[in-house]
Amino acid sequence: MSSTQKVFSSREAHRAWLSSLAALPQGFRVGTARFDFMPKEAPKPARMTLTLIALDEPTADFAALFTRNAFPGAPVIVGRRRLGAAKLGAILINNKISNVCAPDGVEASEALCVAAGGRLGLKADEVLPCSTGVIGWGLPVEEMVAALPKAREALAGGSIMPAAEGIVTTDLFPKVRSTALGGGRIVGIAKGAGMIEPNLATMLVYVLTDLAVPREQLREILARVGDETFNRISVDSDTSTSDTLVLVSSGRVPCADFATFEAALRGVCADLAEDVVRNGEGVRHVLRVRVSGAPDAATACALGKAIVNAPLFKCAVAGNDPNVGRLVQAIGKHVGATGSALDLSRLRARIGGLEIFSEGVFRLDYEKEAALVAHFKAAELYKSAPTADGAFAATVDYPPHERCVEIEVELGAGAAEATVYGGDLTHEYVSENADYRS
Amino acid sequence: MSSTQKVFSSREAHRAWLSSLAALPQGFRVGTARFDFMPKEAPKPARMTLTLIALDEPTADFAALFTRNAFPGAPVIVGRRRLGAAKLGAILINNKISNVCAPDGVEASEALCVAAGGRLGLKADEVLPCSTGVIGWGLPVEEMVAALPKAREALAGGSIMPAAEGIVTTDLFPKVRSTALGGGRIVGIAKGAGMIEPNLATMLVYVLTDLAVPREQLREILARVGDETFNRISVDSDTSTSDTLVLVSSGRVPCADFATFEAALRGVCADLAEDVVRNGEGVRHVLRVRVSGAPDAATACALGKAIVNAPLFKCAVAGNDPNVGRLVQAIGKHVGATGSALDLSRLRARIGGLEIFSEGVFRLDYEKEAALVAHFKAAELYKSAPTADGAFAATVDYPPHERCVEIEVELGAGAAEATVYGGDLTHEYVSENADYRS
Repeated sequence: MSSTQKVFSSREAHRAWLSSLAALPQGFRVGTARFDFMPKEAPKPARMTLTLIALDEPTADFAALFTRNAFPGAPVIVGRRRLGAAKLGAILINNKISNVCAPDGVEASEALCVAAGGRLGLKADEVLPCSTGVIGWGLPVEEMVAALPKAREALAGGSIMPAAEGIVTTDLFPKVRSTALGGGRIVGIAKGAGMIEPNLATMLVYVLTDLAVPREQLREILARVGDETFNRISVDSDTSTSDTLVLVSSGRVPCADFATFEAALRGVCADLAEDVVRNGEGVRHVLRVRVSGAPDAATACALGKAIVNAPLFKCAVAGNDPNVGRLVQAIGKHVGATGSALDLSRLRARIGGLEIFSEGVFRLDYEKEAALVAHFKAAELYKSAPTADGAFAATVDYPPHERCVEIEVELGAGAAEATVYGGDLTHEYVSENADYRS
Repeated sequence: MSSTQKVFSSREAHRAWLSSLAALPQGFRVGTARFDFMPKEAPKPARMTLTLIALDEPTADFAALFTRNAFPGAPVIVGRRRLGAAKLGAILINNKISNVCAPDGVEASEALCVAAGGRLGLKADEVLPCSTGVIGWGLPVEEMVAALPKAREALAGGSIMPAAEGIVTTDLFPKVRSTALGGGRIVGIAKGAGMIEPNLATMLVYVLTDLAVPREQLREILARVGDETFNRISVDSDTSTSDTLVLVSSGRVPCADFATFEAALRGVCADLAEDVVRNGEGVRHVLRVRVSGAPDAATACALGKAIVNAPLFKCAVAGNDPNVGRLVQAIGKHVGATGSALDLSRLRARIGGLEIFSEGVFRLDYEKEAALVAHFKAAELYKSAPTADGAFAATVDYPPHERCVEIEVELGAGAAEATVYGGDLTHEYVSENADYRS
């Protein structure tokens, strides 16, 4: 949804651009501490980064959305409690271990809040804990408590970059998006990469603002914005047990107009959501699917998701293969399986602006196929090639461009629409996930 | 569902075993013709096999289930018409092109039935047409009509093997299952490989019997059996536009007991369905998921499907990585997304007979992890290794064994159960599907 499609020629160019966006809103500081530890569940050491996001003064104005996975992580269970707390003073985030269904996981998260609160002069319920990483392992609470002073000493205003870099796991690059509005700022960071089809929230996303929007309005706005941005992406159709989207206002700058704030927030979240897909595990092509002419937005969104989640179509895209039959299969599978009464006889589909399907039949010829291949190739983020040991890994650690495979589906059955983002299915995804923990 | 897990030491051993199962029931003959042609949609020649399954006398006793994909292929549209015809005399099957949403596709299928009927002394509506292969291309009707005499001349009783080999596309090996019953036989063949999560039918499956079961009963029995076998498998969650399951009786042998017939048919179909998964595109591990203690079979089946369709868990299995967190994620994603009231607090999960989850937490230690790895390795069909050009392809063209990764989920919420089959997600799947048409 970026208004201009940026191109980055190097990692340095990308980082410089991120830094230009990263100025913290007033009233926030961030700090990190990195350390090695010995997991109880594995035979070799692991590395963890603790990230602190601290408010100069605790605020009542915060909002959060969490995963709908029925096995939420312990930090999500604790986070839901925190929504009832009077104020929020800090967010404590760790990567490497997600603290999901681990024995005594909730107790571990609460113990960390007590320790962090003690260091920061906050009550335990003013600290929001978040974790991401391996599911099932237990947090190394002792080592984490020992690392807290270092993270606290590192706290600094100015840039959110240390936090953007601190929260990542398999991400190729940090993700920062921001906007200025009425003398204040909205700044968001995200970690993504895998297990991503958020359901009313996404992986770990933190959006900070100094614009004063009261708690109630903030929560209503976040629910709407989350639904229209992070709920419209899917990397691999898997829904994490840790998805968390947090919006915090330090209240330092008066906000004249909540509708303008909501629109600005939607822009930041839409860009961050697209970043999460572009940096999805193994993603070499971003798919942007615009479904229009739908009876309602939910139908449009579900159909878009069905397309970006169809494995055979995703593989074809990975191979720059304009296998449009698999696109139509995905639409037909979804409509057939949901028993929808949707009339598909007026369906028209375009890829890269070229009509490929209308009136129930394909509209293809040699020349169009060649143009489709060229469109796919132009949207490729990097070429796939195995490493010496036969594994596949991304060959860039920045997004070289923001071009997408552009898919348009017109249903001719109403006025609603939705745009959904997804990725292709690649050797890099399989390599990354066939032995993630070793 | 095979009662014994067979092991095959070579392609020859597997083919010999298939041949031992392949005796045709009385009243049927099969024949094939192979030819090269120039597709209108591609710059290089392609090869097609025409397969004829002919009855000595047309029969009123036949049943068929077709895909629920909302864009069914032309042969499925024609096939649904044929269910209303008085009799069936022959089935005409082609591979390579599926005739889905191609201009004038229905007319092409009907023209082939007219031509085949003319050669066989049948009315056009006594011929059932089936096609599988690339979606969107048009059938080479002229070349197919020209090949019909050769297929007719090849018609022979005795063995169904020529048909089992004639209908394949990307399959690694032909699939035959059979059983003897009361002086008659039930013999089934299947083609599978990709785009497989059937919805009330499967790819192309033909089951022939000489046992006399009247049309009405045959159709009721097939609906039940299809639901409990082919509707409980998924290779890649994609639902083909061509799925077809046909059951034909020549009526030559009296059938004493329809319930016994149904049980025998269920056994043949269950084995064939498992074969389709074992031969799924890129499948190196078959997952057998038994969900028990469910409130109803539909809930158990849906939960089993959610597990075998979770990409991250499938990748972990490919890497012999006992990433049980991804298994629990898949269950939680499904239950959370469907808004089900299912109580998960009594859920217990086992892999390879070892308890990995109960009372809301993981039950893991080093020793158990090692045993899980060993279980995954034992179920591997072949080792993954790239070819010289960096692509991945199956290194066997027969199933070396019938071992599965055995997953048991006990819900403690009722008495219903379902067993679902699926495959892992591998480099071989991506290689095969990233450039299928080239």
